Amino acid sequence: MGSALKTQIATSTETTITVRGRDLVNELMGHVSFTGFVYFLVCHRVPTADETRVLDACLVTIAEHGLTPSSIVARLIADSVPGETQAAMAAGLLAVGSVFVGTMEGCGAILKRGVDGGDDLDAFCRDVVSDFRARREPMPGFGHPIHRPDDPRVPRLFAIATECGVNGKYVALLKRISAELDRQAGRHLTINATGAIAALLLEIGVPVEIMRGLAVVSRAGGLAGHIVEERATHSGRQIWNMVEHAIPYEEPKE
Amino acid sequence: MGSALKTQIATSTETTITVRGRDLVNELMGHVSFTGFVYFLVCHRVPTADETRVLDACLVTIAEHGLTPSSIVARLIADSVPGETQAAMAAGLLAVGSVFVGTMEGCGAILKRGVDGGDDLDAFCRDVVSDFRARREPMPGFGHPIHRPDDPRVPRLFAIATECGVNGKYVALLKRISAELDRQAGRHLTINATGAIAALLLEIGVPVEIMRGLAVVSRAGGLAGHIVEERATHSGRQIWNMVEHAIPYEEPKE
Amino acid sequence: MGSALKTQIATSTETTITVRGRDLVNELMGHVSFTGFVYFLVCHRVPTADETRVLDACLVTIAEHGLTPSSIVARLIADSVPGETQAAMAAGLLAVGSVFVGTMEGCGAILKRGVDGGDDLDAFCRDVVSDFRARREPMPGFGHPIHRPDDPRVPRLFAIATECGVNGKYVALLKRISAELDRQAGRHLTINATGAIAALLLEIGVPVEIMRGLAVVSRAGGLAGHIVEERATHSGRQIWNMVEHAIPYEEPKE
Amino acid sequence: MGSALKTQIATSTETTITVRGRDLVNELMGHVSFTGFVYFLVCHRVPTADETRVLDACLVTIAEHGLTPSSIVARLIADSVPGETQAAMAAGLLAVGSVFVGTMEGCGAILKRGVDGGDDLDAFCRDVVSDFRARREPMPGFGHPIHRPDDPRVPRLFAIATECGVNGKYVALLKRISAELDRQAGRHLTINATGAIAALLLEIGVPVEIMRGLAVVSRAGGLAGHIVEERATHSGRQIWNMVEHAIPYEEPKE
Repeated sequence: MGSALKTQIATSTETTITVRGRDLVNELMGHVSFTGFVYFLVCHRVPTADETRVLDACLVTIAEHGLTPSSIVARLIADSVPGETQAAMAAGLLAVGSVFVGTMEGCGAILKRGVDGGDDLDAFCRDVVSDFRARREPMPGFGHPIHRPDDPRVPRLFAIATECGVNGKYVALLKRISAELDRQAGRHLTINATGAIAALLLEIGVPVEIMRGLAVVSRAGGLAGHIVEERATHSGRQIWNMVEHAIPYEEPKE
Repeated sequence: MGSALKTQIATSTETTITVRGRDLVNELMGHVSFTGFVYFLVCHRVPTADETRVLDACLVTIAEHGLTPSSIVARLIADSVPGETQAAMAAGLLAVGSVFVGTMEGCGAILKRGVDGGDDLDAFCRDVVSDFRARREPMPGFGHPIHRPDDPRVPRLFAIATECGVNGKYVALLKRISAELDRQAGRHLTINATGAIAALLLEIGVPVEIMRGLAVVSRAGGLAGHIVEERATHSGRQIWNMVEHAIPYEEPKE
Repeated sequence: MGSALKTQIATSTETTITVRGRDLVNELMGHVSFTGFVYFLVCHRVPTADETRVLDACLVTIAEHGLTPSSIVARLIADSVPGETQAAMAAGLLAVGSVFVGTMEGCGAILKRGVDGGDDLDAFCRDVVSDFRARREPMPGFGHPIHRPDDPRVPRLFAIATECGVNGKYVALLKRISAELDRQAGRHLTINATGAIAALLLEIGVPVEIMRGLAVVSRAGGLAGHIVEERATHSGRQIWNMVEHAIPYEEPKE
Repeated sequence: MGSALKTQIATSTETTITVRGRDLVNELMGHVSFTGFVYFLVCHRVPTADETRVLDACLVTIAEHGLTPSSIVARLIADSVPGETQAAMAAGLLAVGSVFVGTMEGCGAILKRGVDGGDDLDAFCRDVVSDFRARREPMPGFGHPIHRPDDPRVPRLFAIATECGVNGKYVALLKRISAELDRQAGRHLTINATGAIAALLLEIGVPVEIMRGLAVVSRAGGLAGHIVEERATHSGRQIWNMVEHAIPYEEPKE
């Protein structure tokens, strides 16, 4: 029972700490950035400078969106349990789910299937788009409620990918799907930031299954900033008052 | 009610996203690392290259400790709710509390009080140490169950601080407290990683109150790596079996 | 924006508190049990004594299963963040997801579709079972790793339903599906506790969509008991040691 | 390592499930209410009918307060991660901390110290009240932002305690502290619901350390009701819009 179970992540002795075969103190601390270390933990090799720069750009892109469900939640919990920063951040991170960030995984899965499939990409794009349209579901990675006609982060992400030499098959396929979607819809729908990030993360070898995990790391950084502001402004109490007054009680009908 | 409440964190228009006064797309994405961005969100200015390197070293130091409560919890939840990576990570992050990481805040608060106080530091060190010893409480930032006589991460963190030109008053005070603690205890107790990180974060201007928040960001990176391994090894199910068999039922006495 | 939004749940004045149209102090406190109150909050009417007894039996059935992922998680977090009981319980409750309790919702959805559909129930059972078997997926509400050939809680739940006069169409359909499943599988698979509870909750009018929420309430009770034991035995620390030693480090292959 | 560790909570065989020495199926299901079962898990004996009624009243009292931080958080997470009810509820339960419910523990600890101490209770009350007043801290269990001059739930809780024959030393001491507080403050401060509940829980033998755990169970019931309303009204999206518009962006000063 569990006898064969191993971990390849970390071990330590009195004088050493080893992380995935590297000496933490002498080979990693001071030598690799946090972003590079996260890549190392998730992808199991130290990234190149270009790969690190791409991952940095992706993490910077989605860390902070102002007052969103995750940051409102973190503020309310920070106000209710003041000393326990981790509780406020954990509560906020629970919002990083299917509605907002899960689209990254959905888009990534499509791109991976298309590139790995080795099929006729014209047919692939046509089928993928018509399939979503037939089900009247939004294509993951497309559309944005505010940024129209185009999400300004997307060309920047593609430019960074080009600068870093990772502007490959996944980015190409995403653009191709975009063109096909516009054609079938008869109007322009932006590629959104989560769509572009899905493509870039695939280009640098991040598995689709852990993309949401990287979004959690990124969002944790954003929430730390909200906790700092919450401590100064005590918005949590005011948000509570505001919501309580904005949603009046109505006698239920029997 | 709330009318005067503002946020200085972020806003967006159809074509722009602004984070703390900077254009996200043109000034931040591709220009600042994720670590630099987190510093910017928490300390409200873009860090220097040296400050970024110090923060990177701190975040790399505490991201990963192998199988600890936080990673065991993340694995168990990942096994129970497979698709919801954020739930597994949030559960694990709830462990980043007073017992393990809170010592960073405790140590940081002492260092800040000593440096800001402008008092006689010899007297300060003597009083702080004797106070903890009188209460028979452990000094936050000192001692380690495995790393004896010294935590190998600490000299490395101090060396990085020196290389980056931030080896200042807080590091000096931590060393002075360490010497006084050894004198009063009559034996050597290591400065541990959380103690050294508290000093380094103070050197680069991170407020004590958000140190735990940065630990959460760091640990989120570590947990992403555990989720990847969990998906491959299914350790959660085996951990459950192991614990269930190791803790047998005993009839309660009436 | 939100102007039409109302809540029918609760309101208060200086001297009164109203919950769903009832005076909390004079009509609910001391008059309705907690189980009856939860039913009232979820189903929007005070239950009969029989309905309350059925819900009590369901909540008692799934509150406590010994050392499971949720209770192990709660113990580990309780050990890491000792004073914050709610963090330990919240972490453990995150395990009440698709793998263990979600089957209740799956089974409930099938039963509701069958009863509401008004179709030929023989055909319905045949199709549902053959559909799951064709996809090689387990039927939600059936099978148990330990309780074979039969889950002992199930006949007891059905007996309570009979005593309370709610042994109706949903229970009947569950038994019919069970017979069809045994026929198609060529062997006996037990109806499990979550399957029987799904049927009983439907009998007393609980919507499928909130069944998991009731399981969270129930499990919260179980976890409170684990926190009490954790404070006495400090199992969290020992679970950590045990897991750490049982899963040795293995050098990753480059 | 852990060899002596035992659990007294639960065990099972193919045909039986035992919880704290009782047969779950034959002795508990259908025989004990959920409230009685929670008492049994936490206090390690089946409560009397009167004790159950007192605990029911306490759980009913604090389950539901309309739109509060915990219910707003649960709604926002329910909107972001629609299928995962447990994530929404766990996030909301993280608010059951020191600010709102922790006062129950603080009040309970004072009452226990007074009753167990066997000291002169006049002196005890005088010292406890003057101590809090000297530190300018609010007395836990006293005061309420809305319910003035008196919290209407408190006399009802005391009446239920009297009806159930558990109106003993803890309730008496709470009233005595209340009189002393009014005397020293020169004005009337209400005993609040958490104060009265602390006294009642002590009367029925609930340890102070798990009172917050029972509040979590109670609140879980309340949050289940909010999830049901959230699914119908989609308030989460509107709360988000409302907060985003009410807290405008302000350019940070450099």
